[in-house]
Amino acid sequence: MSQTPDRISIAILGASGYTGIELLRLLGMHPNAGIRTLTADRHAGKDLVEIFPHVRPLRLPQLVKIDEVDWSGHDLVFCCLPHATTQEVISELPRHLKVVDLSADFRLADIEVYAKWYGHEHRAPELQKEAVYGLTEHAREEVRRARLVANPGCYPTTVQLPLIPLLQAGAVATDGIVVDAKSGVTGAGRSMREDLLFAEVHDGIHAYGVGKHRHTPEIEQGLARAAGREVRISFTPHLMPMNRGILATTYVGLAGGATAHDLREQLAKRYADEPFVHVLPFGEVPATRHVRGTNHCFIGVAADNPPGRAILVSATDNLVKGASGQAIQNMNVMLGLPETTGLGLIATYP
Amino acid sequence: MSQTPDRISIAILGASGYTGIELLRLLGMHPNAGIRTLTADRHAGKDLVEIFPHVRPLRLPQLVKIDEVDWSGHDLVFCCLPHATTQEVISELPRHLKVVDLSADFRLADIEVYAKWYGHEHRAPELQKEAVYGLTEHAREEVRRARLVANPGCYPTTVQLPLIPLLQAGAVATDGIVVDAKSGVTGAGRSMREDLLFAEVHDGIHAYGVGKHRHTPEIEQGLARAAGREVRISFTPHLMPMNRGILATTYVGLAGGATAHDLREQLAKRYADEPFVHVLPFGEVPATRHVRGTNHCFIGVAADNPPGRAILVSATDNLVKGASGQAIQNMNVMLGLPETTGLGLIATYP
Amino acid sequence: MSQTPDRISIAILGASGYTGIELLRLLGMHPNAGIRTLTADRHAGKDLVEIFPHVRPLRLPQLVKIDEVDWSGHDLVFCCLPHATTQEVISELPRHLKVVDLSADFRLADIEVYAKWYGHEHRAPELQKEAVYGLTEHAREEVRRARLVANPGCYPTTVQLPLIPLLQAGAVATDGIVVDAKSGVTGAGRSMREDLLFAEVHDGIHAYGVGKHRHTPEIEQGLARAAGREVRISFTPHLMPMNRGILATTYVGLAGGATAHDLREQLAKRYADEPFVHVLPFGEVPATRHVRGTNHCFIGVAADNPPGRAILVSATDNLVKGASGQAIQNMNVMLGLPETTGLGLIATYP
Amino acid sequence: MSQTPDRISIAILGASGYTGIELLRLLGMHPNAGIRTLTADRHAGKDLVEIFPHVRPLRLPQLVKIDEVDWSGHDLVFCCLPHATTQEVISELPRHLKVVDLSADFRLADIEVYAKWYGHEHRAPELQKEAVYGLTEHAREEVRRARLVANPGCYPTTVQLPLIPLLQAGAVATDGIVVDAKSGVTGAGRSMREDLLFAEVHDGIHAYGVGKHRHTPEIEQGLARAAGREVRISFTPHLMPMNRGILATTYVGLAGGATAHDLREQLAKRYADEPFVHVLPFGEVPATRHVRGTNHCFIGVAADNPPGRAILVSATDNLVKGASGQAIQNMNVMLGLPETTGLGLIATYP
Repeated sequence: MSQTPDRISIAILGASGYTGIELLRLLGMHPNAGIRTLTADRHAGKDLVEIFPHVRPLRLPQLVKIDEVDWSGHDLVFCCLPHATTQEVISELPRHLKVVDLSADFRLADIEVYAKWYGHEHRAPELQKEAVYGLTEHAREEVRRARLVANPGCYPTTVQLPLIPLLQAGAVATDGIVVDAKSGVTGAGRSMREDLLFAEVHDGIHAYGVGKHRHTPEIEQGLARAAGREVRISFTPHLMPMNRGILATTYVGLAGGATAHDLREQLAKRYADEPFVHVLPFGEVPATRHVRGTNHCFIGVAADNPPGRAILVSATDNLVKGASGQAIQNMNVMLGLPETTGLGLIATYP
Repeated sequence: MSQTPDRISIAILGASGYTGIELLRLLGMHPNAGIRTLTADRHAGKDLVEIFPHVRPLRLPQLVKIDEVDWSGHDLVFCCLPHATTQEVISELPRHLKVVDLSADFRLADIEVYAKWYGHEHRAPELQKEAVYGLTEHAREEVRRARLVANPGCYPTTVQLPLIPLLQAGAVATDGIVVDAKSGVTGAGRSMREDLLFAEVHDGIHAYGVGKHRHTPEIEQGLARAAGREVRISFTPHLMPMNRGILATTYVGLAGGATAHDLREQLAKRYADEPFVHVLPFGEVPATRHVRGTNHCFIGVAADNPPGRAILVSATDNLVKGASGQAIQNMNVMLGLPETTGLGLIATYP
Repeated sequence: MSQTPDRISIAILGASGYTGIELLRLLGMHPNAGIRTLTADRHAGKDLVEIFPHVRPLRLPQLVKIDEVDWSGHDLVFCCLPHATTQEVISELPRHLKVVDLSADFRLADIEVYAKWYGHEHRAPELQKEAVYGLTEHAREEVRRARLVANPGCYPTTVQLPLIPLLQAGAVATDGIVVDAKSGVTGAGRSMREDLLFAEVHDGIHAYGVGKHRHTPEIEQGLARAAGREVRISFTPHLMPMNRGILATTYVGLAGGATAHDLREQLAKRYADEPFVHVLPFGEVPATRHVRGTNHCFIGVAADNPPGRAILVSATDNLVKGASGQAIQNMNVMLGLPETTGLGLIATYP
Repeated sequence: MSQTPDRISIAILGASGYTGIELLRLLGMHPNAGIRTLTADRHAGKDLVEIFPHVRPLRLPQLVKIDEVDWSGHDLVFCCLPHATTQEVISELPRHLKVVDLSADFRLADIEVYAKWYGHEHRAPELQKEAVYGLTEHAREEVRRARLVANPGCYPTTVQLPLIPLLQAGAVATDGIVVDAKSGVTGAGRSMREDLLFAEVHDGIHAYGVGKHRHTPEIEQGLARAAGREVRISFTPHLMPMNRGILATTYVGLAGGATAHDLREQLAKRYADEPFVHVLPFGEVPATRHVRGTNHCFIGVAADNPPGRAILVSATDNLVKGASGQAIQNMNVMLGLPETTGLGLIATYP
């Protein structure tokens, strides 16, 4: 990490989780980032290397508790705390801090929808009004002016990038959208759960949260904004034996006279100047390994077997474009840096 | 393998592929099966243990070429040859042999559909008329009387088992069916292809054959028979980093006033007496690892997020219920043995 | 599971762990085994299918607590409880029961060695005197007469099978033996530990217990008996991203004028009539996948690069020959059944 | 890739293999590197993205044949060609080019040893005399002055880094060294071999080249230089189901009165100022995943069970410190750039 005078002084809240250490990996390539504070309440007083030996090559501050931090001198906070604990923590941060929140706590604009899907009242409704939903490619101006960015979820990022432009153009039907998504295990964080043990995940696949996964309203919110009307989707996530990556296979009906080729052309045009979104030649589809470890989203479009239908396949790394990478992308925008700073990597392949 | 006087004298054509050795594993538990002949043209003269060291504990005949076999004294042939080579081979077998063909060559009743999807004329149209499509649970009587059984494909088995009873009952809509399937690598056989190298499959997922996989017409044929009308489906297979297993996530519209719960009840009733098909409690969905190494199919049903829709999830082992296991199940039926003989295993878990 | 009048009435203590369900899988192929009782104190009152959905095809008794069991009518107990809890439990079982204990609690004949490596006094020293160490191929007569068999550990089984005959013959040096072992995750049981989460095991390898793993004294005990003198070994286990399997690579100095070829010949001769131990052609080495899911041990011998040294490579499935399979093999011997009953499977490959 | 006037003009020969694309990934973070030429004879005329879709975000020159390249204007060549083809290719390159060769063709100083292990005469014996063996930490000055650097093999790098300082200090015995190494599949390159298919590697492990792997003489050469006398080692590589990474577990006898703790201290002191070699606290051992995707080598030291012996465990990423990363490290040294330029990444974890 460079020590240039124009460096940004950063705190990471919840540094002992997977999104926290992924921020460290990526910020290590960012010439303007300086890590000033790492918090991890449960591990306060330790060095992060005791928990994650792979950070040994870095020089890092010791882990502290959140309420021990002196916030003066900090510029920006990445909040990597669990869902449902974040609203209160961010409410208490000084307002000179810019905040990128990687939890789900500020992603749903409608606090009643939040209450319905998360099972409790929103704890910072005023702050919610201020929060900007940070799907960067579709909110660049709002992010630029934001103090608090709600970083999108991994599934919602992967699903919205191909669908938003098509719904905006009226090229796909708003009903009957089916999203079948497959994710690596890090999407669940570093949770002590029997169903995340190696032997219970390896060499198999299963669906979870069928018909009721909490990312559903977040996706529907974005699609509704794009379509200008309510959108209800089928969305089934699956847990796969891989560390990182999301593949979303999305089945749509064509609308407005569009062909499957047209969908590909509209996406290619929309994302032609985007550094992180890449539309493949028609009929070619991406693999998660093409974006492993990167901030890129690859999108493929193909014709479907029944007439009048098409298939969109999009791939991201859930810890990068789906979490820490997009958080840095948003930081870059919020602070007026070139958007790709520190995010230039191509995939670790194989 | 028992040497009882009532043993069945068996030949396996194409014994050096994955379905061939899976037959050997399963027949090793079958008290009536005797392996008399193993063919593998490319490896004729070798012992199978030179190719597959794990068969060392078995006493097996040496590999021979097909045209070297003296067919007298054989009762039944399992044909594990590649697609498109099988029609001619089976045409030339003596007619006293019962045949279970694990290739795709006799699965499509309409030879014009075959020609369209496989790119060449059918080479044994007379034999095609005789072939019985052996999805055992739905063709038991035909299989009992058959001489030539076309063993269903792995995807078609996994997709048809949940859908056929529901289409027969008119409980799901015939249009808008979306099948998103995920398979382990053995579905592709032991093929020398760069995209099947470990490093190209591990830790990732991708779709293939998007909108045009050859199992589509086979599935549509079975669904059309059940529905009594043409059915066109969206079907996307994905290649996953696991050895065995297929998970099919199927999205359907409800019809005829049925609820998602009704679908579950209808399936439970239909399969109550079936030893290999198990319907889970409502809302519970299977994992491929629950059927790993077994002839079982597990089926789950859940309500979907948009009203009027449901999700079916079915899991099989592509090498067992999706190939060699169902082939033995069909053999048992053809020869009047108890249908579960040799197929009693539960999953190798973990 | 057959219901023959000559069936054995079996209880499994600790049925909700990996060795417990592996016993169920294997006993499902055993014509004389009847499962009468399953205990799991934490889950008493549940059906096992609630914990392990893959057992759905079986008809099983409900889980009960150990102290609720009426032991009359039981013939044999498999004890799959955690290390250090077992000595007391077995002490309290009625003495008409035959017991195969899969824990480490009765494996070390010297209770002082036990106390040193396990950190507490032995809690059933009288019972220890009665216990027979059940490495079947090397203790068949003692097992036949035993009431209590201490089933060997997975590493000790895999390491002792190649070394015991060679030490007995004086063909390898007793000092400088280096055993480098690699194991799948199920060797650690179904433990809730962060280092067993999928993301922490996948796509990597590490050593553990370096220089001090608890299986060391168990191996040294067996080697000392074979050599007739104390043996100290280097033994390093490694945790690998696979579900099952142990590969032990053992480096030895030649002794008594033996060549590496001689080692292979001596092992081949010693194990010629053993149904579960297979010695490969000289220079050929096994893979864990050749024995996956089976009770077999494959052994290879090769010359080493420095003169006067050889390499032994042995492979087992840690849950079968390294645990539940050998336990059933011992049961068969204890009860006078053919030793291979229910254990005829070859590998699930791939 | 920056286009600064002080950029280095680079050619990669054999760009369509795994070390070639890994160079592209790493050079993408190098501020002074400019990719001018990519060769791949078999794919000449294509864009690399047709072979490796993940390079889509990069702007790269089209693939050409080696003999089509105009070498004027090039500064440095990375040669990623297969073993045995490289000696002739490099012989014909203009001498103004600096060359880092990633093959094995120039690693053995003694061309008779080369002929013995590689089965043919050396084809460029004059060039061999000029070649510098580029284990950077132990050859920095020679590399600085070199025109042709033979980049070390992946196993040799991982094994020599812990052993060289200890042999130089006389702290470990020169005989009886046992190296048990475990590697991910990319060590074998992108070869079309049945034993590298996913289903043949997944969920298992096996040893290969037992007693005779070609990296043995390369390791022995380096150890002999350090010890000042001949060294013969036991070296067994194993193929593991992971994409990247090598773990070497090395068993040594203590010498010169050293304890296991002393070994750790000597290594810590020797590597205290090295940016890429990290010695862990005594008794702690590394995992390959701690260095995944990085140029780091982590080393752990522990006491062994038999007195007078110790265990060294070292971990690298075979494609980075074991190949393309060390190649760039050598390039940096050859061209007078800061040695860590472009190599600052910590592990992609998980």
